[in-house]
Amino acid sequence: MRISAVDPFYLKMPHITDAADGTQDTLLVRIRTDEGIEGWGECDASPLVSLAVYCCPMSHGNIINIRESLIGETLDGPDDVLRLHAKALRNGLDIQQIHHAYSGADIALWDIIGQKLDEPIYRLLDGQSANAHTKLPYASVLFGDTPEATYQIAARLREQGYRAAKFGWGPMGKFGEDNDIALVRAAREGMGTDAQIMIDAGVVWGEAHETAYARAKAFAPFAPTWLEEPLAPDAIEAYSALSKRNPPVPIAAGEGSGTSRMAEDLIRHGGIQFVQIDVGRIGGITVAYRVRQLAEQHEVQYVNHTFKSHLSLAASLHVFAANESFDLLEYPAAGSKLSQRLTVEKLAVGHDGQVGLTDAPGLGVRVDTEVMQAYLAPVRIQVGSEVIFGPADF
Amino acid sequence: MRISAVDPFYLKMPHITDAADGTQDTLLVRIRTDEGIEGWGECDASPLVSLAVYCCPMSHGNIINIRESLIGETLDGPDDVLRLHAKALRNGLDIQQIHHAYSGADIALWDIIGQKLDEPIYRLLDGQSANAHTKLPYASVLFGDTPEATYQIAARLREQGYRAAKFGWGPMGKFGEDNDIALVRAAREGMGTDAQIMIDAGVVWGEAHETAYARAKAFAPFAPTWLEEPLAPDAIEAYSALSKRNPPVPIAAGEGSGTSRMAEDLIRHGGIQFVQIDVGRIGGITVAYRVRQLAEQHEVQYVNHTFKSHLSLAASLHVFAANESFDLLEYPAAGSKLSQRLTVEKLAVGHDGQVGLTDAPGLGVRVDTEVMQAYLAPVRIQVGSEVIFGPADF
Repeated sequence: MRISAVDPFYLKMPHITDAADGTQDTLLVRIRTDEGIEGWGECDASPLVSLAVYCCPMSHGNIINIRESLIGETLDGPDDVLRLHAKALRNGLDIQQIHHAYSGADIALWDIIGQKLDEPIYRLLDGQSANAHTKLPYASVLFGDTPEATYQIAARLREQGYRAAKFGWGPMGKFGEDNDIALVRAAREGMGTDAQIMIDAGVVWGEAHETAYARAKAFAPFAPTWLEEPLAPDAIEAYSALSKRNPPVPIAAGEGSGTSRMAEDLIRHGGIQFVQIDVGRIGGITVAYRVRQLAEQHEVQYVNHTFKSHLSLAASLHVFAANESFDLLEYPAAGSKLSQRLTVEKLAVGHDGQVGLTDAPGLGVRVDTEVMQAYLAPVRIQVGSEVIFGPADF
Repeated sequence: MRISAVDPFYLKMPHITDAADGTQDTLLVRIRTDEGIEGWGECDASPLVSLAVYCCPMSHGNIINIRESLIGETLDGPDDVLRLHAKALRNGLDIQQIHHAYSGADIALWDIIGQKLDEPIYRLLDGQSANAHTKLPYASVLFGDTPEATYQIAARLREQGYRAAKFGWGPMGKFGEDNDIALVRAAREGMGTDAQIMIDAGVVWGEAHETAYARAKAFAPFAPTWLEEPLAPDAIEAYSALSKRNPPVPIAAGEGSGTSRMAEDLIRHGGIQFVQIDVGRIGGITVAYRVRQLAEQHEVQYVNHTFKSHLSLAASLHVFAANESFDLLEYPAAGSKLSQRLTVEKLAVGHDGQVGLTDAPGLGVRVDTEVMQAYLAPVRIQVGSEVIFGPADF
């Protein structure tokens, strides 16, 4: 089979705000083959910047775009997906955005191979005898603007049946320690003592590991499962200083990893206990799976980072479904209509409160192209006299 | 003073090949202020992908473009340049390409402040008492396709008066050890025994540190100053394994550093002896200067990576001109007409064979806008019904 088309699509809500809500727009990638199989992937990244990586003119041998790397290529099995990943990254060696952008293509290629071989992706990764274990979904939401609003959000999630929830960004870290503690208390009280809560500080303390340590101590009485991203993604020395003090709450980080080395650096030198990987940023399923293996070697828990549609959620889950001990799943419980409506199938929370994959081939989740049409922002790019990108049909 | 305009310009040669020649196109960034001062910077990155970072629509609070971060901002001194760097990177937290793209803006801002305060940039960085030391330029060229062609290139550089030259990419690592050795021998014989030669393997051995070690041993009799990028930019564990064996040729790397952490990771864990920073990739003068300081702390030699015009060369040199012991300068000795003609002033090789800065304010090198016009590729980007980028006047 050969790759016949590689098309990125920019979708967006009519109005976009500066809230830390990554579901307001998205970049989908569709790959088609000459046998009529088509696969889809989603990037968690700037749609326009990533789209440019699919069509940018060649600068030299290290700046060659993704379409150029893929179209016409042979695609028959998992080895081809790995080979094409290596090729696209080598051709894009000097394109910093290549990992963010290629993520959607890599996911789409796995989706195609799964369909071709009639296998769910997790079984292509972990072998014929692998089982897809269900995970405990934690609702991933933003803090309310106040402790009271946060309490209401937490209480509503509890009513909806969530036994775990992560609260993040918004006011956390911006109005002093007392307010930070009040936010965490509200999350705990709203969710109840039997639930898991996670706190996402949204990189708010930069390199200030002393502040991060103080907050970990202050939050410990509310028993959060982890304190997430207290520091900047690149502040590995600060993470190291923090972890050496053995903070009383486990530290989680990694969503900003745009390469496997960034995740490895956090694991080896940052001393984190949970590594959170966004399959739509790090280069797709291929790279996320490598980080899962690294986490297994280092006895760190692998968790997905997902704040997009259920297409991304499914791609994320295939990466670590086969590992029973990696038992938590970030589950987008809020988000735009675009992200909620984008897929035909959903990964619903089961009666047992768990979320799992089906044995459908590929991702097992398909894009609703009517919804896509409704949110499509057609892109046209001209360089010199040449139109290098225009909207594709679907 | 306030920033009134931020304009990226895509320049390119009429015909672009896949040779590892980064001078075939470029992205210039011009920043204007309400006091009429204008500054320029150059990125060593995909022009289109980087340009998209200047104009991409907001996705949420972590994907906000560079223009949005800068236009209207106060700009009066070096502190503002540092503040704006932090702001733009925070606003672009989830744009992987932000560092490559912002490099040009950061350089342009330093250029403006130098002009405003009537000081060369190196003195803004290192203080009033700093001296700009001259450096030994090493001609940076590609290997010829054969040892014989490489010999001819080396002999010509020697005739031109170069006392140091770096040979890279092309056939190196692609046709077996004997050919690799023949290439290095040809470079040494062409340059003569009294010259410095450097070997740039162009990441050809990926993660194969055993091969890199074997080549370092095989090249040692020809006494190269360093073996550069034998391994992939992200293969820090492989660099670590290589350096622990104490190869008989010093190891250089770092041009692929798109963040200061990537350079820090190479220095702390990769065990390199020379760290090579491209001011047009790592986020500009602000970040390159931080890596210089880190190199000083770790007793590693800082070297520029420059394969662009003399605008980039000047920006690179300001970063470490004041440190006398960092005495080598990568000097683009070949390259396209675009890169050779782009600046009004050149950093010429002096009678003593050295290259230095003048005391002209800012970068001390200006763009020739007539040359620019000749190579300009106007870009137009439409998202939905809106034209979000069109060519600016100059």
